[in-house]
Amino acid sequence: MLVATRNPLNIGASARAMANFGFRRLRVVEPYDVAFREARSAVGAAPLLRAAEECGSVADAVADCQLVVGTTSVGHRELQHPIRRLEYGARLIGKALAQGPVALLFGSEKFGLSNEDLSHCHWLMRIPTVRQDLSMNLGQAVALCLYELARDPKAARARPEAVRAAAAAETEQVTRLLLESLERSGYVNPRTAGSTAEKVRRLVRRLNLAAKDVPVLLGMLRQILWKIEGG
Amino acid sequence: MLVATRNPLNIGASARAMANFGFRRLRVVEPYDVAFREARSAVGAAPLLRAAEECGSVADAVADCQLVVGTTSVGHRELQHPIRRLEYGARLIGKALAQGPVALLFGSEKFGLSNEDLSHCHWLMRIPTVRQDLSMNLGQAVALCLYELARDPKAARARPEAVRAAAAAETEQVTRLLLESLERSGYVNPRTAGSTAEKVRRLVRRLNLAAKDVPVLLGMLRQILWKIEGG
Repeated sequence: MLVATRNPLNIGASARAMANFGFRRLRVVEPYDVAFREARSAVGAAPLLRAAEECGSVADAVADCQLVVGTTSVGHRELQHPIRRLEYGARLIGKALAQGPVALLFGSEKFGLSNEDLSHCHWLMRIPTVRQDLSMNLGQAVALCLYELARDPKAARARPEAVRAAAAAETEQVTRLLLESLERSGYVNPRTAGSTAEKVRRLVRRLNLAAKDVPVLLGMLRQILWKIEGG
Repeated sequence: MLVATRNPLNIGASARAMANFGFRRLRVVEPYDVAFREARSAVGAAPLLRAAEECGSVADAVADCQLVVGTTSVGHRELQHPIRRLEYGARLIGKALAQGPVALLFGSEKFGLSNEDLSHCHWLMRIPTVRQDLSMNLGQAVALCLYELARDPKAARARPEAVRAAAAAETEQVTRLLLESLERSGYVNPRTAGSTAEKVRRLVRRLNLAAKDVPVLLGMLRQILWKIEGG
């Protein structure tokens, strides 16, 4: 829910973030500019904005919600509510959403939520910025809160799909062609050829070649060899 | 690093998010509008924008970085890079930052990063939006990535500072005054007074009163009692 928002771009950006993270019900309380439906940056969020409800008061806007959470940048006021960091607050909201609707309130760009707005809240949530005196852009704050709500903690531990590594034989093929090119180019001193070969072999292994890159490298080296041999 | 950004508002919003989450070095590659230094929404980010470096190419911009990560909304192209979700990618970037500078590239609002831009990247990172066809607002995408980089996983488990709960004696004080008010109001049927008292006692305990709210409630009840008794 956006309370007393002044900039239609921020309403649009908020709607877009909602669409990005799968949230649907936008309520707007006393927007400064009633032309919020035309909010321009709302690429893809038009249906959501059309369905947005305009409410006359915070009390009306939160009436059917079982939990009401305000957002704050802190620092401005003596706050009377428990304040929870986004990471923890989002977990609590996630649990509450299993029980019933939750309202997440964002105040105006300039003043945030008023004390009267805040008195409708069960608790407050703050985004852990490094400087508490520097508030966040409203559209960015909305995006962060919705991202954290939609965030999958397991994904942080997930391994990406493994790229198949080249087998030793494939790596050795590359090593041999590279060595041959180096020999033909006069790079290898015959007296130290043995140790050079070992150096090259170790270097190629440090590259951790992917299987799919092996044919490409072999093609390059073959072409280079062909040219060296006067092709 | 912002590549070919068109809207100065987005440069400003990106700089503001950097200030919010403690990042310092902004590089801008071929910005569409050279007037990026005046980006308006950059409340508090002016020093960061003044220090922003303008680069002629992605290669120049990433030259001193040990890891180069591109951002993508996917879906548009056949991508040749490993793609990692933000939650996991941010962890990898966090580790790499201990070794040396890391570049995080964001493309233009309309086209994202070009294939040429992407070829400078070691891997790509995507924000896990529900609809991959709907790209994110650039300023919001920057904010999300920096938030995830600065995010403290421990904070999700942290308990908020405990509110001191009322002691049983305090809760009982409230219960007694409430019961007295109910009796004087004629709410209590003398024949069921015992069970009513128990119901009220249980109800008051379900409120999980905070210690600091006890004197306030007692004051309210005393005033009500005083009125009831014809004060």
